[in-house]
Amino acid sequence: MQAELISVGTELLLGQTLNTNVKFLAEQLASLGINIYFQTTVGDNRERLLQALRIATGRADLIILTGGLGPTEDDLTKETLAEFLQLPLEIVPAELEQIKSLFKRSDFNWTKNNDKQAAFIPGSSILKNEIGSAPGMALKNGKQGYLILPGPPREMTRMFLQYAQPWIKEIFQDELQGILYSTVLKFMGITESGLEVLLADLLHQQKEVTLALYAKTGEIQLRITTRAQNRKDFAQKITPVFNEIKKRTTAYFFAQDDVTITDVVAQLLLKKNFTLSTAESCTGGMLAESLTAVPGSSAYYLGSIVSYANSVKARLLGVPQDLLEKHGAVSREVGMAMAQQIRVLTGSDLGIGITGIAGPEGGSPEKPVGLVYIALATPDTTICTECHFMGDREIIRRRSVLRAYYLIWQYLQNTL
Amino acid sequence: MQAELISVGTELLLGQTLNTNVKFLAEQLASLGINIYFQTTVGDNRERLLQALRIATGRADLIILTGGLGPTEDDLTKETLAEFLQLPLEIVPAELEQIKSLFKRSDFNWTKNNDKQAAFIPGSSILKNEIGSAPGMALKNGKQGYLILPGPPREMTRMFLQYAQPWIKEIFQDELQGILYSTVLKFMGITESGLEVLLADLLHQQKEVTLALYAKTGEIQLRITTRAQNRKDFAQKITPVFNEIKKRTTAYFFAQDDVTITDVVAQLLLKKNFTLSTAESCTGGMLAESLTAVPGSSAYYLGSIVSYANSVKARLLGVPQDLLEKHGAVSREVGMAMAQQIRVLTGSDLGIGITGIAGPEGGSPEKPVGLVYIALATPDTTICTECHFMGDREIIRRRSVLRAYYLIWQYLQNTL
Repeated sequence: MQAELISVGTELLLGQTLNTNVKFLAEQLASLGINIYFQTTVGDNRERLLQALRIATGRADLIILTGGLGPTEDDLTKETLAEFLQLPLEIVPAELEQIKSLFKRSDFNWTKNNDKQAAFIPGSSILKNEIGSAPGMALKNGKQGYLILPGPPREMTRMFLQYAQPWIKEIFQDELQGILYSTVLKFMGITESGLEVLLADLLHQQKEVTLALYAKTGEIQLRITTRAQNRKDFAQKITPVFNEIKKRTTAYFFAQDDVTITDVVAQLLLKKNFTLSTAESCTGGMLAESLTAVPGSSAYYLGSIVSYANSVKARLLGVPQDLLEKHGAVSREVGMAMAQQIRVLTGSDLGIGITGIAGPEGGSPEKPVGLVYIALATPDTTICTECHFMGDREIIRRRSVLRAYYLIWQYLQNTL
Repeated sequence: MQAELISVGTELLLGQTLNTNVKFLAEQLASLGINIYFQTTVGDNRERLLQALRIATGRADLIILTGGLGPTEDDLTKETLAEFLQLPLEIVPAELEQIKSLFKRSDFNWTKNNDKQAAFIPGSSILKNEIGSAPGMALKNGKQGYLILPGPPREMTRMFLQYAQPWIKEIFQDELQGILYSTVLKFMGITESGLEVLLADLLHQQKEVTLALYAKTGEIQLRITTRAQNRKDFAQKITPVFNEIKKRTTAYFFAQDDVTITDVVAQLLLKKNFTLSTAESCTGGMLAESLTAVPGSSAYYLGSIVSYANSVKARLLGVPQDLLEKHGAVSREVGMAMAQQIRVLTGSDLGIGITGIAGPEGGSPEKPVGLVYIALATPDTTICTECHFMGDREIIRRRSVLRAYYLIWQYLQNTL
């Protein structure tokens, strides 16, 4: 079964409003097992809306329109759908009374143009608007279903969940079977293309279960999708491929779905009873900020010295002056000393040191922009990775922070 | 002149990703005076993308596609456009080298499937991707212009502003006229309603020139919009109202357009030759991160101690233990001591101290969530403001950082 979304509103095409309705409806329809092949946005214009309706009706079973339900002249979704279907609109007296009573309860005066919010195609279902004045409308016309929902996201989402979704389930009960479930696996320390090579046969073999790769900053995501009766059925269906993927990617697979690397590291620190402190140069506090964004992080995170100036590296952090002079502030030696010093100064179990060149200035042929040393000091040893990141200042800093998390994750995974 | 947007990506139709690209591009095109009548989203599917291209080409002068530019098999936007236009794709050796060299500089291995990112329609313009591996493409084919941009919003916005927008202006220079110009004024230390009262007559009087207020986190924005021939004409048209606004708001107006409070403070520090250091508790490095996001910040910013644990406040920052015990870590006294100590320890001219309760846990009737003390230590004195912020953990932390900037801005404005 296929649905198509039509978002109506000139404000969307002027960029004044971010269209969040599409994401919500797409998620909802996916969870019902309904495919969306197209979504169209069109302005408050009768002719162009007619054109969009014509195209959508030619290729979908269910057409959902959002927006253009209000009282003003440029709200014309209902009128245009009626015209398209060659069906009349008639005032429903009970609805008119309802809308009038809303006005009586508010400070606003009734104006005649509110009438049209109470007009519907005879035989359609009226969808109640609990938090706004414009009701929605649902009808089956021949093979197709049409749903009209208000544009404001709060009104739309509420109306969809309370009234539109049950209507779809009832009207299309024969077409709906097996809801589409999906889960996202997250990887670090490997590229999208590297992962594609590693999982090539699985990516191509799957029929019922589909796999798709996405590159995000500092991590790669793999989405596993299939139709299933419920969550448990879904888990069973994907178990073979999931296990095979995990087997091949143990060094890279760190989390699933909404769980972030920050969460994973936080949980491991808590579980293994380790405390952490950080010393940051080029990331300038970004790692500290990210760690402390987690509520309750004071249980394992002690603090940071952001040693942006060399004088701070030496005076506050106690990096030996001769290391700074001999190797430069951006060096393996200084990165390791930063990690070791912050660990000792704060008395934490683990210490991270980050020093590098985030750019755009400050690079040289020997030490180009993107060169970052990330060190981890533990009770036993200190390790340091030399990274060469692509991207602008912001991206280089973000990648550095993610790599630091990756180091801590790798270490804690292999620690009792 | 009419443009049409085609967003390519199954993740958009599954509701996994919010489509922010449409809003950005719609705003940009509106500011160029280009109308958008339709926007379509289509999945990673050759046939349906061909269908979308056919429909769009039938009704628009400029077609902008976003997404589906990556190295994997389901990235097929460029291939499908070439097929639609019946034009070949050819590997451009220089681009291939460029992409390969990106791989060489990074820690990742080159895989063959990255090749296709270097393939383009002969005669098209290659749009450089400064922060990702997939370049974009622009070409004029008959009457129509086609633009392909990457899907990730950071890459897309940067490529659009740097390369695509100039291309549009050049290729369609005859069609573009009477562009809508606007400028945004930014204010701190006053509410939206306070500003509305202050500017009431101006907000209502304007006809050709329109004014609109927007409340953002920690600042209020006022947009001035009017049609003009060019930037200079625009500046002349708005000068009277602009001057009147500035006259009434000297204590609050701090910047215009893309300039942030961070930029303003950075420029003032440089100009007045002041150095700064920070000591953060509840903001956990967010102020340091924000200060060091500015390239060249090492000229005036020395560093920070993120004293998340009380032991760090005492041991590293040297806040007297009796202050911590008598007043608690979240107190005016400790906030001021943090600012003074970091100033002395780093030898900076100015020191900021922030201590508070960001929540969701840790509040009490005497010291509720949202209570934050922000102190500024200067060569002459130390001042401290007690703030009561609303919002969640993230918002409270962001408001604290912005208030710290406001303190520094106020001080530097009144200093020789």
